[in-house]
Amino acid sequence: MTENVLAYLNENREQLLNKLNEFLSIPSVSTDPEHKEDVQRAADFIVTYLKDIPFEKVEKQETGGHPLVYAEYNGAGEEAPTVLFYGHYDVQPADPLEQWNSDPFQPEIRDGRLYARGASDDKGQVFIHLAVFEAFMKTEGKLPLNVKVCIEGEEEIGSENLYNVLQEKKEQFSADFAVISDSGMVAENQPTILYGLKGFTGVEITVDGPDHDLHSGMYGGAVRNPIMALSHILSSMKNEEEVVTVDGFYDGVEPITEEERKLIAEVKGEDFQQATGVPETVSEKGYTAKEHTQARPTFEINGIYGGYQGEGTKTIIPSSATAKITCRLVPGQEPDRIQQLLEDHVKRVAPSGVTVDVKKEKLSAKAYKVEPDHPLIKKAANSYTKAYDKETVFVRMGGSIPVVEWMDDIYQMPIVLLGFGTPEDRLHSPNESFPIDSFDKGMETLVHYWNEVKE
Amino acid sequence: MTENVLAYLNENREQLLNKLNEFLSIPSVSTDPEHKEDVQRAADFIVTYLKDIPFEKVEKQETGGHPLVYAEYNGAGEEAPTVLFYGHYDVQPADPLEQWNSDPFQPEIRDGRLYARGASDDKGQVFIHLAVFEAFMKTEGKLPLNVKVCIEGEEEIGSENLYNVLQEKKEQFSADFAVISDSGMVAENQPTILYGLKGFTGVEITVDGPDHDLHSGMYGGAVRNPIMALSHILSSMKNEEEVVTVDGFYDGVEPITEEERKLIAEVKGEDFQQATGVPETVSEKGYTAKEHTQARPTFEINGIYGGYQGEGTKTIIPSSATAKITCRLVPGQEPDRIQQLLEDHVKRVAPSGVTVDVKKEKLSAKAYKVEPDHPLIKKAANSYTKAYDKETVFVRMGGSIPVVEWMDDIYQMPIVLLGFGTPEDRLHSPNESFPIDSFDKGMETLVHYWNEVKE
Repeated sequence: MTENVLAYLNENREQLLNKLNEFLSIPSVSTDPEHKEDVQRAADFIVTYLKDIPFEKVEKQETGGHPLVYAEYNGAGEEAPTVLFYGHYDVQPADPLEQWNSDPFQPEIRDGRLYARGASDDKGQVFIHLAVFEAFMKTEGKLPLNVKVCIEGEEEIGSENLYNVLQEKKEQFSADFAVISDSGMVAENQPTILYGLKGFTGVEITVDGPDHDLHSGMYGGAVRNPIMALSHILSSMKNEEEVVTVDGFYDGVEPITEEERKLIAEVKGEDFQQATGVPETVSEKGYTAKEHTQARPTFEINGIYGGYQGEGTKTIIPSSATAKITCRLVPGQEPDRIQQLLEDHVKRVAPSGVTVDVKKEKLSAKAYKVEPDHPLIKKAANSYTKAYDKETVFVRMGGSIPVVEWMDDIYQMPIVLLGFGTPEDRLHSPNESFPIDSFDKGMETLVHYWNEVKE
Repeated sequence: MTENVLAYLNENREQLLNKLNEFLSIPSVSTDPEHKEDVQRAADFIVTYLKDIPFEKVEKQETGGHPLVYAEYNGAGEEAPTVLFYGHYDVQPADPLEQWNSDPFQPEIRDGRLYARGASDDKGQVFIHLAVFEAFMKTEGKLPLNVKVCIEGEEEIGSENLYNVLQEKKEQFSADFAVISDSGMVAENQPTILYGLKGFTGVEITVDGPDHDLHSGMYGGAVRNPIMALSHILSSMKNEEEVVTVDGFYDGVEPITEEERKLIAEVKGEDFQQATGVPETVSEKGYTAKEHTQARPTFEINGIYGGYQGEGTKTIIPSSATAKITCRLVPGQEPDRIQQLLEDHVKRVAPSGVTVDVKKEKLSAKAYKVEPDHPLIKKAANSYTKAYDKETVFVRMGGSIPVVEWMDDIYQMPIVLLGFGTPEDRLHSPNESFPIDSFDKGMETLVHYWNEVKE
């Protein structure tokens, strides 16, 4: 039967790609209120697709924010297991637009890659699941197992409402295990099982000085410069050896074992310098770049602004300055506690002459880890290997998927992360793309997997 | 004769105010290419006014940038002295617009103040000079002395082309002394002679890291964060005691004498905390706020930007970060040398994993000081006292007027700074204004002064 399904996918490849392009053309930027309608349109696209397959009980569920698309398939019978498939149809903002080589919302294939915002994160990966479900129905008339679909529209804004939905609808959403495709492989065509994810948390620091921008000639020497004050605060939080200098930040961090260091070293990751274009890579003292990115906590300033940013010079002392910070956490770090440590540190080092405000970002998640030898994980590895004809590797990654930690927390069920992205996908950046190989082999992997786990 | 002139100004007060409003309504923002035409219109306004008075040889001189308005009056005869009057008709950008209580380019009088961008810096002060010249001509049929007018349109962008013009047209512009009204008094209705100005210079620091914004989960731990790198660089340039920690920055700085400390302490300046709204004032260790603002060099970050500044969170490692810095200099500090010291410092402390570029701003000027007991200065003090019926005080200020240093440098002639602005004018900020008292008494002061210096 696998052959028929694969044949269908092959014969309908062009039509499926066109349908994916239609999906990618909708600018469903969840963080920008101006795209509220587009987010709805993306949800409607999925609703229509699920009804066509057909799934049952297809509905757009109100969440208080952007809607969540839910659907069920129960045709595999009482004996068959039930999987909860999670994905998200919202995307990151596309700015800075001028850095894109093609319109982020007019998908374009160049050199074996499909370029578009969301091509990899996560519309492309959501789509191949739907395509595989379609293929099973059109050829076999049924799916190998029962399926519950949960595709949200708020992942890129921290899945603000999902946690409550998962708790309130525990009965409706409960399944034997969950499958999520919102991650990547360590290299193109290198099957990869993701057994660990980082958690994260964030704060926004605002330094307020004078109540209006001041002429630097009239007031320079009488007031504290908010940007300089912010610089002093930020530089006190991480040193030049990339060690976070916030008291207690590393308390309780699960150490990296020697075995894990070997595992991390074995897996050939991407060339960070080549992929990022930096003069040289820089990592926490005592750890390699791969160890730091996969298994050590990070502290990043995502953005900063204050004063005059236009052409030429404006000789002012600005009234305020703001920095946005997010941290990626590892097992042993409680997001709420880290947020509190960051706030305590900032308040303690804040200089005189200004007022400093620390806003705790709502989005937060604990780190997640699963045992690499779990049966569902092993079957995933086999399915990958069949499709890609290559041994599967096991890695942890620095990314965070809040829903994983929440499902783990609320449903206590195994979660399998089947990612098909690649390091070259430029997630969250200009020129995001997804390899056509991952489109084809990703679908094949899923066909094998559903057949392997159906008992 | 003075009475006739003052009477004319009084009788035509409303019409003159309407004419000033017409001048202030032109958004002649010199730093913004979008306002190029408006800058031309402001120049044309002055050309028309000068021709009406009438002045001779009125012309818009090409400078390579915005035009300079030149005119002459030689009717006072060979024996009378010739003054070169300088001012500027360009203004600072009005942003942030939302902080204005009335349209910056629709002048409005509230509580005895005229609110508009340029009301004080420098259109308002240029205008009262023109009004006084008009008054002399309309009543006496002549001016008390010969006048050369030089009103430029690039002061707010560092008078980029003026230096060359002053050199090339030395013959045409030469005079016995110069008068400039582009400064202020220490308090409203407190006649003030400005005998010292700070020089200034600036640099722009740009830190480049990855060649595109990176997903902080995928690359956090492998690359240096450009914003954090910039924070480390900036925080190394001035400490929390407001002491600039760039090697050699204070070398050769003319110390503040005890006499001068007394002079500075005597003059009641504004309440910095009240005027700026800061929690508390902060100044260089060992100096009062008045000493630091008037007679010690300053270092200010005017603006900073990098990464995501929009709503919500964007978990990226930004590709670059930039900071704009300007310093105010005192006698003994060479602008070029200070720029070099700043660049050397930045290059020395720049961390690994990023490339750091230091752009030296073209605008630069040395500090300026004149002897308080010069005859032309004493006469100015008397004229102020007649108009304001109050003793004149002598101060240095932290502001910089490049043209002063350049005229000093090229023409070696006395320069008299007759300022009528006040500390509450909010120069370069939202809600800039000019006191109506300064409009009236400023004109009266000028009438007295031209009569006093005509021999």
